[in-house]
Amino acid sequence: MDSKQFKEAATSAIDEIVNYYDTIQDRRVVSNVEPGYLKKLLPDGPPENGEPWADIQRDIETKIMPGLTHWQSPNFLAFFPASSSFPGMLGELYSAAFTAPAFNWICSPAVTELETVVLDWLAKLLNLPDCYLSSSHGGGVIQGSASEAIVTTMVAARDKYLRETTSHLSGTELEDAVAHKRSKMVALGSDQAHSSTQKAAQIAGVRYRSVPAAKSNEFAMTGSDLEEVLKQCKAQGLEPFYLTTTLGTTSTCAVDDFDSIANTLADYAPPDVSGEIWVHVDAAYAGAALVCPEYHHLTAAFKHFHSFDMNMHKWLLTNFDASCLYVKKRKDLIDALSIMPSYLRNEFSESGLVTDYRDWQIPLGRRFRSLKIWFVLRTYGVNGLRAHIRNHIELGEGFANLIKSNPDLFKMFTLPSFALTVFTVLSDSKDQKERNEVTKEVYELVNSRGQIYITSSLVAGVYVIRVVSANPKAEEKYLKKAFEILVATTEEVRAGRIKKIENDVVTMDIKGVGEAAITNSNGRPS
Amino acid sequence: MDSKQFKEAATSAIDEIVNYYDTIQDRRVVSNVEPGYLKKLLPDGPPENGEPWADIQRDIETKIMPGLTHWQSPNFLAFFPASSSFPGMLGELYSAAFTAPAFNWICSPAVTELETVVLDWLAKLLNLPDCYLSSSHGGGVIQGSASEAIVTTMVAARDKYLRETTSHLSGTELEDAVAHKRSKMVALGSDQAHSSTQKAAQIAGVRYRSVPAAKSNEFAMTGSDLEEVLKQCKAQGLEPFYLTTTLGTTSTCAVDDFDSIANTLADYAPPDVSGEIWVHVDAAYAGAALVCPEYHHLTAAFKHFHSFDMNMHKWLLTNFDASCLYVKKRKDLIDALSIMPSYLRNEFSESGLVTDYRDWQIPLGRRFRSLKIWFVLRTYGVNGLRAHIRNHIELGEGFANLIKSNPDLFKMFTLPSFALTVFTVLSDSKDQKERNEVTKEVYELVNSRGQIYITSSLVAGVYVIRVVSANPKAEEKYLKKAFEILVATTEEVRAGRIKKIENDVVTMDIKGVGEAAITNSNGRPS
Repeated sequence: MDSKQFKEAATSAIDEIVNYYDTIQDRRVVSNVEPGYLKKLLPDGPPENGEPWADIQRDIETKIMPGLTHWQSPNFLAFFPASSSFPGMLGELYSAAFTAPAFNWICSPAVTELETVVLDWLAKLLNLPDCYLSSSHGGGVIQGSASEAIVTTMVAARDKYLRETTSHLSGTELEDAVAHKRSKMVALGSDQAHSSTQKAAQIAGVRYRSVPAAKSNEFAMTGSDLEEVLKQCKAQGLEPFYLTTTLGTTSTCAVDDFDSIANTLADYAPPDVSGEIWVHVDAAYAGAALVCPEYHHLTAAFKHFHSFDMNMHKWLLTNFDASCLYVKKRKDLIDALSIMPSYLRNEFSESGLVTDYRDWQIPLGRRFRSLKIWFVLRTYGVNGLRAHIRNHIELGEGFANLIKSNPDLFKMFTLPSFALTVFTVLSDSKDQKERNEVTKEVYELVNSRGQIYITSSLVAGVYVIRVVSANPKAEEKYLKKAFEILVATTEEVRAGRIKKIENDVVTMDIKGVGEAAITNSNGRPS
Repeated sequence: MDSKQFKEAATSAIDEIVNYYDTIQDRRVVSNVEPGYLKKLLPDGPPENGEPWADIQRDIETKIMPGLTHWQSPNFLAFFPASSSFPGMLGELYSAAFTAPAFNWICSPAVTELETVVLDWLAKLLNLPDCYLSSSHGGGVIQGSASEAIVTTMVAARDKYLRETTSHLSGTELEDAVAHKRSKMVALGSDQAHSSTQKAAQIAGVRYRSVPAAKSNEFAMTGSDLEEVLKQCKAQGLEPFYLTTTLGTTSTCAVDDFDSIANTLADYAPPDVSGEIWVHVDAAYAGAALVCPEYHHLTAAFKHFHSFDMNMHKWLLTNFDASCLYVKKRKDLIDALSIMPSYLRNEFSESGLVTDYRDWQIPLGRRFRSLKIWFVLRTYGVNGLRAHIRNHIELGEGFANLIKSNPDLFKMFTLPSFALTVFTVLSDSKDQKERNEVTKEVYELVNSRGQIYITSSLVAGVYVIRVVSANPKAEEKYLKKAFEILVATTEEVRAGRIKKIENDVVTMDIKGVGEAAITNSNGRPS
């Protein structure tokens, strides 16, 4: 493909993408292909000789499109959004053109330096304490996902804990102490925290234990919830070293009580003392709302914590991946992840004059992801981003009001939070299991029809439906339509259930699509 | 940015990218900005209101370009290539447009299914044994980097080893045994293996030990090299559980002796028996050459091994990232990385009917990276890719002949291998340290001038220069020019050194750029 062919191909691709976005609301939102559909459509191997772009592009519409679930459709109300935008796409295009693995500064200084600049911009916009800025001892780094950010910080926390709590030992005594501690170390998160903390514990080779968060606190973990578990750990000889707190949990967008958690830790594992517990703030989705001053009070306690992560690729118009991780002490990451022995480490790395981001992450090479963040922040501006977030939160409150306006059919489960509405379908049964079945039936029937796509979750034994109004193309009319579908489907299910009781015959046609979504309702994109 | 503005912006961006590629050879190949250059050029935060694309695009040329090191320039002969191509860029563009974190199948079936299809295509093209195909118990998955692939497989190997060697125990006995084993487990790689295995060992929380590879074997690790270290480990109570073998080492592109390694392991830690050693083949760069039948004999022993990884983003025209990891038993990955307890795991996942790639990797979400691989394989075809590789190998042999044709100035260090030429600058000194200094001086002076960009390395105490002729735009004329620069600089250094001895005055103007490159010469992009 030469320059001329590329210009033609790219022009045609741009036209197709624009058309896709302009008409996306008319496509079935969730794919209904059968497993293995694509293998049947494609040859067994690559062609012997190259093919023209026109042939390749034709296959995108005919073979790929049917297998896409359209996350950018305004009818996509599931999981959390994975928002994209035109300036984000331009960033990805330039990143591919300037391809450089940029594992150290000289490999392409602009890749490192733009990342430092835009992550400082973002930190200020999100009202993070100054200790997370590159001008302090901390700083930001773009990771691929919130899961990756948790593994990265947990490995740093593990090594720091082991180093600091055994610094008085040497020889076999040291080796034995480290082996013993490794087997007793435990990472914590609330029972509403995303499963990525549990997965990170598996990868880091440590235990995981969850802290129960109560419905009476809207599922926020509190300092006293944590205190209880810390006492249990102590009694059992376990050593907590890492805690994930969440700003916007997956199921209900709960916000942990950061202040009381900080207070508990000040008593039980004081910060900056050997044996401290590394506190990570997982704000993967709702962290985007911190661009609005009305949420700035939420970050006050973060100065007591160790790391913070939010995904611009969820709610901030930047295509996947752009997970923005901040640490208070970059030295902690470098100590764990640098393979340069300390006597070879140069003064520039530590001073912040030159950053080698390879030592802040698991991979070595890295893409030029800061370009798309730069393009998005500049194209929308601070006011544009705030308007974007506030619009979605308002839409969410409007949707919650619709749910509340139908107390015969639905019941709110938690308060509307960050454009997420969580509710159940009402039924006459006093048995929770039976009530769950009714909600589940409505959920599955809605998803099997593919007009809208929603997610469910099981929270404290209650089966709930989640509707997220934070899609870039979200509008009141789509949320009203979604509500109408939910009402009609609920009435249909109720009628069907009455008929079923009467006839003892199953009349529903529930496809596997809903089932697959349920199985993974707890797996948010991150 | 609406559809119309995006079309205009994208057209302008495409024009700029095409112009960049058409004139890239005229730019200074390695950036010579000072650390911190960009912060001075940019404001302290994002703008209050959005800016038009024209303003943003202008800044790319004026502020970003000076800070780029141009990896796609034909004058870039350093590290290993990070090749890009126009079809690869189109893939990245569509991937951004179809943004979906696709952590499970239903999240966008095409994302999962195209990945399975094109990785099977590639496996056949590379002549991997059938056990690495998705139709067997194995399969491929796209990772972000070769480092990530090593961490992922090492964690799987660690957990498998612990599980299998303690399966007869329970209760505290099991806990104690696991704690003890964790402290004794050791990952191995040759002393020429990339540092990513050592880093992975840090992340997985295990020891690392290197196996010496001899110059007399062209730095290939052999079965007897390995045997020696296995015996030492046993004597010291250590438990080897993972071995990285390399097809194309970073410094000299050595190829480990896979057959003798497989033979040694059959004796010392037989495969498929509890306590086996997981063998990973790191073919990050040179694995691309396996598209040519003349290299197919290299894969014969892989059926005895456990995983294989090559980066299409190095030498196979696909922009970063596209690290293609294959495992023989996908169950091993899923056992270590799935957070679904086994009683909830569905039959489809294990049967291969539906793949949830989140359980094959560290992150949860994932990009649609198979699109760019699909576009590249189809645009070039099998014959195009073979011609691409063979051309570079031929150019490399031509460059090596130039080096050999000047026995007064240069000496080949190893045989030319996979388009890599490794040599030293000759000097009269009998002292290796002094000889190293001469080579280093030439290397630094060349890089400080920025006409070409090369890498150095220290191998078995010898300071060497590496020249790679595998850049997508590589041509004989650029390699001839590079050779002329090396000759002229060597003569200049020799004359300068004579003058220096005479006058005891340093006359060289050696900038920091060369220094930074040396420090990281062992850090290949991966």
